[in-house]
Amino acid sequence: MLIIKVGGGKSIDTDAVASDVATQFQRDPNLVLVHGGAETTNEIAEQLGHPPEFVESESGFTSRRTDRRTLEIFEMVYCGLLNKRWVEALQTRGVPAVGLSGLDGRLFEGKRKDKLRIRRNGRRMVLRDDWTGTVDQVNVDLIERLHAGGYLPVLTPPGASFDGEAINVDGDRAAAKLAAALGADTLLILSNVPGLLANYPDEGSLIERLRAKELASALELAEDRMKKKVLGATEAIEQGARRVIFADGRITEPITRALDGGGTHIVA
Amino acid sequence: MLIIKVGGGKSIDTDAVASDVATQFQRDPNLVLVHGGAETTNEIAEQLGHPPEFVESESGFTSRRTDRRTLEIFEMVYCGLLNKRWVEALQTRGVPAVGLSGLDGRLFEGKRKDKLRIRRNGRRMVLRDDWTGTVDQVNVDLIERLHAGGYLPVLTPPGASFDGEAINVDGDRAAAKLAAALGADTLLILSNVPGLLANYPDEGSLIERLRAKELASALELAEDRMKKKVLGATEAIEQGARRVIFADGRITEPITRALDGGGTHIVA
Repeated sequence: MLIIKVGGGKSIDTDAVASDVATQFQRDPNLVLVHGGAETTNEIAEQLGHPPEFVESESGFTSRRTDRRTLEIFEMVYCGLLNKRWVEALQTRGVPAVGLSGLDGRLFEGKRKDKLRIRRNGRRMVLRDDWTGTVDQVNVDLIERLHAGGYLPVLTPPGASFDGEAINVDGDRAAAKLAAALGADTLLILSNVPGLLANYPDEGSLIERLRAKELASALELAEDRMKKKVLGATEAIEQGARRVIFADGRITEPITRALDGGGTHIVA
Repeated sequence: MLIIKVGGGKSIDTDAVASDVATQFQRDPNLVLVHGGAETTNEIAEQLGHPPEFVESESGFTSRRTDRRTLEIFEMVYCGLLNKRWVEALQTRGVPAVGLSGLDGRLFEGKRKDKLRIRRNGRRMVLRDDWTGTVDQVNVDLIERLHAGGYLPVLTPPGASFDGEAINVDGDRAAAKLAAALGADTLLILSNVPGLLANYPDEGSLIERLRAKELASALELAEDRMKKKVLGATEAIEQGARRVIFADGRITEPITRALDGGGTHIVA
């Protein structure tokens, strides 16, 4: 089982990823694609007159402030524009892709944090009416049911709260939970960098091999967005995935090259 | 098997429909919900600076001109905003809904008409680069697979061309094809009128019972948007559905009341 998470950055080569997913699907159809979409969401939100707002949580992570209007724009871009773009790119390459959000069948289910504790200008604040949460469990049955029918699931945030509400969840950590729940051989995370960098943004400082127990120190040197990815990688390996690869989504054959040794490989 | 098609008009009572779907699902989980979204798509298209354009086909039907940008907005609204709104409304009511477009698993598959022959100001014209098409076949396997798992499929346009491209297809006719393919007992079409009206828009002129062979004459008196619905009803019954009901989606318990005799009932 291979779980591929592809970021939403505009430098990602969608055609190259889709073609390589199709190649991989011919070899072993037991795979899942998870995608993001933050950059495009920011653009559409601007166009619709509801620009994105980012907040810093008490634990130091940067998150999108997700009021109800933002959640709707998020759904339009992730579930509408981008999920169907990925499904179409795969369908035109002969792959029977089925696009779903984490809300559908509660694929990504977890706790909604309707109160968001943040720091702003050094002060602690509580934001209410927020629609974010965590992925605490994965609906393995629905994935297995689609695989049994020969379909390739293409998944995206949002997730579902335990009450069935749509919640903004982090795509990397959702993919990590999924890899753990499915006991995946490999979680491959494609983004717009070549992998984990010892000296970000120096792409020559790529870390090629890392043991899971060394991840905590890698977390220290990771840039902010990479932190969530590393945290997800740690969780995935602790909870059952065999290896995690961080690799470049801007190149041709990005999946084949990552599986052949490219990027940063992390094993237990 | 019950297929419920609910229109995208803003006067539709979403909460009432979702609650009644949940009630119906308790009685018999063998159902499918199909929804529209034209009105909201028009609004968002205006907000994004790409207002809708309608064209009259040679055969006299009014259609949305669907260039690539329109298709993307269409996907954002139908597959993102509205599909996830229906799924959330059902999930919060305890129904394990799974939202899919006709592109996913090629649920609604058919021929793309990339050349659109239209009449404009009395003149015949050909529009190119259009992304519309028809639903010629339905992926019954995917619906049955979801039903077997206890899930409720919530479906929406677009469909898939035979080459796997996304195409704008008519939701009413897609629902009719689905009802025929599944040999449904009932295709229930909820919209913002009480049913077929002998003298549109006089709601007192509701036609309560009609035989399928009388549909051709009903087509004469139908208003433009209702024409496609009546055409779909004719196809559904010709191809295997037992009955079609046109009923009011603006009232409480709209499904229960339609199944109890409300609206226009059409049988073979």
